[in-house]
Amino acid sequence: MSGTRPLRAVSRESSFPEWMRSVQAQVEAALAHGLPSGEAIPARLHRAMRYASLDGGKRVRPLLVFAAGELTDAPCERLEVVASAVELIHSYSLVHDDLPCMDDDVLRRGRPTCHVEYDEATALLVGDSLQSLAFELLARADIGDHGRQLEMVRLLARASGSCGMAGGQAIDLESVGKSLNQPELELMHALKTGALIRAAVLLGALCGDALSIPENASLDRFAKRAGLLFQVVDDILDCTASTATLGKTAGKDAAAEKPTYVSLLGLERARELAADLQTQALEALSQFGERRRRLIELTEFIARRKF
Amino acid sequence: MSGTRPLRAVSRESSFPEWMRSVQAQVEAALAHGLPSGEAIPARLHRAMRYASLDGGKRVRPLLVFAAGELTDAPCERLEVVASAVELIHSYSLVHDDLPCMDDDVLRRGRPTCHVEYDEATALLVGDSLQSLAFELLARADIGDHGRQLEMVRLLARASGSCGMAGGQAIDLESVGKSLNQPELELMHALKTGALIRAAVLLGALCGDALSIPENASLDRFAKRAGLLFQVVDDILDCTASTATLGKTAGKDAAAEKPTYVSLLGLERARELAADLQTQALEALSQFGERRRRLIELTEFIARRKF
Repeated sequence: MSGTRPLRAVSRESSFPEWMRSVQAQVEAALAHGLPSGEAIPARLHRAMRYASLDGGKRVRPLLVFAAGELTDAPCERLEVVASAVELIHSYSLVHDDLPCMDDDVLRRGRPTCHVEYDEATALLVGDSLQSLAFELLARADIGDHGRQLEMVRLLARASGSCGMAGGQAIDLESVGKSLNQPELELMHALKTGALIRAAVLLGALCGDALSIPENASLDRFAKRAGLLFQVVDDILDCTASTATLGKTAGKDAAAEKPTYVSLLGLERARELAADLQTQALEALSQFGERRRRLIELTEFIARRKF
Repeated sequence: MSGTRPLRAVSRESSFPEWMRSVQAQVEAALAHGLPSGEAIPARLHRAMRYASLDGGKRVRPLLVFAAGELTDAPCERLEVVASAVELIHSYSLVHDDLPCMDDDVLRRGRPTCHVEYDEATALLVGDSLQSLAFELLARADIGDHGRQLEMVRLLARASGSCGMAGGQAIDLESVGKSLNQPELELMHALKTGALIRAAVLLGALCGDALSIPENASLDRFAKRAGLLFQVVDDILDCTASTATLGKTAGKDAAAEKPTYVSLLGLERARELAADLQTQALEALSQFGERRRRLIELTEFIARRKF
């Protein structure tokens, strides 16, 4: 942990782009504070952890944490720790996914991947250490209710492991060169990207007042649709956007013969599926009234993003 | 999780070998129960996780959890979950350490290493998933006091990450071909193996009645000495025992020009250091009376082990 810093308030009256930039800056500061200093021993590992986690990405999962936190009037200082924990899990997964024995990629967030900038062994330890740090930060946060905080640790651990993100990555590896049907592709993505996106939404809401059982079920439905939407858009961008725009290698799923929504459905029907998922996601939020504003805006952002 | 199973009681009157076998069997059963079934999707990943965690090793860390639990009269059902969590962290670290980009080893616990038996990408995901599962199990256990349980999650996460085990591994990587002095070598080992051994001892004690502040300080002193003792004995065995006896490649530290206690001090002085550390570890336990019996026996076992 390095230094102290002031809390920033995110105004509820601000525009979506203002709100987004404010949350991104707040999470960046929380990550910079939560990560070990680049001078602390072992310094090279700590510098590499900071390289892999700071100054990069859209921070979609942290934005989901904060947007879901609006539903339950959650305090900013809780949301930023929880958002940091979720983002550290995401960052670790990118570092490991880029390794030569996985996707073997050299570009991430417009910069050399961690193992290219440092070395493979360091990148392996960076991913391992970012995962540990996520659980350390989450268990150390001041959430108020210890029982609920343990539930949050369980939820993040489950979403990260073999029945979540890492399990989806394993199915992805096995599916190279195979043809999956739509339910199989959905299962893969529900785990690979969906599980952590769902966790981000549920964890954000858990930072505030308790939701009723029907509200929780609706939020879970939203989270699952939003996760799938994110992946369908990702597949569309992988085949329509350029490497420069994405900041990562474009077209690599097709090159690797990985099944995607575009390869399965074609571009036009993939776009229709994205539109349907957006509609379903927003319908699930209907009971939340004014408090759902940031989630609606963020869903729109996820659907329309160009990178 | 697969099936249910009966709890076993470990008698306090039994001999040390009986007690050890009983704890090992109990932890094996708890791990087999806590790991996802080899039939659950993704099946190949889950089979590889079971391959890397079951039927192997001396289970030194689980034995330390149970032995420390005797100090605070901790219930078996808590100790077995906590011991499983610690052992899963240890198992994940072995899988990642054996990868080609790290130690590139083909033999572990007398069998092909995980990436040899499966493949590198799967082994990477096995390690990642075992780490997540450790935190999931620990956060799901019935420890009684939620605040204390969160403290246990923090302790295990800290011991695993860049300021613990993974950090020690990073220093180890940087030290290849360099000469370290004894304080530098001690720092590396205090992190690489010491941090998780210390965590095992403290977590075991945290499963039962609260210790006083001086008792905690003494137990921590014991844990640090025992961790260092374990490593000094490991270094001695690496240069004196055969690959067949160890179940892993012998002499690899010397071959890799890694600094060890034997390369630093010579075999005779390394043995004297081990004897001194054993004495210091046992002295730290003096205030615990009869309850320290298993820790004394286990320290003796660690000092005299031949594999």
